[in-house]
Amino acid sequence: MPEIIFINSFEVPVGRDEDFLLMWKQIDDYMRGKPGYRWRRLHRSLDPEARLRYVNVAGWESAEHFDAAHDETFRHLQSQPGWVEFPAHPSLYTVVQEDGSPTGSAVS
Amino acid sequence: MPEIIFINSFEVPVGRDEDFLLMWKQIDDYMRGKPGYRWRRLHRSLDPEARLRYVNVAGWESAEHFDAAHDETFRHLQSQPGWVEFPAHPSLYTVVQEDGSPTGSAVS
Repeated sequence: MPEIIFINSFEVPVGRDEDFLLMWKQIDDYMRGKPGYRWRRLHRSLDPEARLRYVNVAGWESAEHFDAAHDETFRHLQSQPGWVEFPAHPSLYTVVQEDGSPTGSAVS
Repeated sequence: MPEIIFINSFEVPVGRDEDFLLMWKQIDDYMRGKPGYRWRRLHRSLDPEARLRYVNVAGWESAEHFDAAHDETFRHLQSQPGWVEFPAHPSLYTVVQEDGSPTGSAVS
């Protein structure tokens, strides 16, 4: 069964990176311990003017595992008032086109 | 030297997928032939209500290769009027946090 990809893009004002990362890591640490979690990569834009300055891309075993991981503790972490400052655009995705592999050693 | 990641998130109205993919493939085919291109994955949201219904994530050898690939032919393809319907949020990124690898066979 192909894995499911969670992508969450964040609007983070320049200079607020440290606070964003502290909050993001709280949730990230929690979710990485959940059944069905596989991998994740957090990307930061090179351009401070970009709207979506941070993009998290993560692999999960299934949508069911992903949904089950969003329990009461997750909701508590996510409901912290500090998140108001960092609008997020989360969704689950499937890969519809693939060429090479994201390892840095792909065929060229 | 670590590779650079290009992420482009697209707002695609439900039902317009086919037209979007035709236009996206024109540019994708062109860019995949450029020096420095390594890999890419196009993701489609499972949720039709998601704002960013398509997200393309691609690896390039360097920002210089990426910039050089955006030549006159690219600009011609990108300036086609059909793109007005599909707002895009492109930026170059670096990976700032990494756990496991996006291959489906990551350590868990």
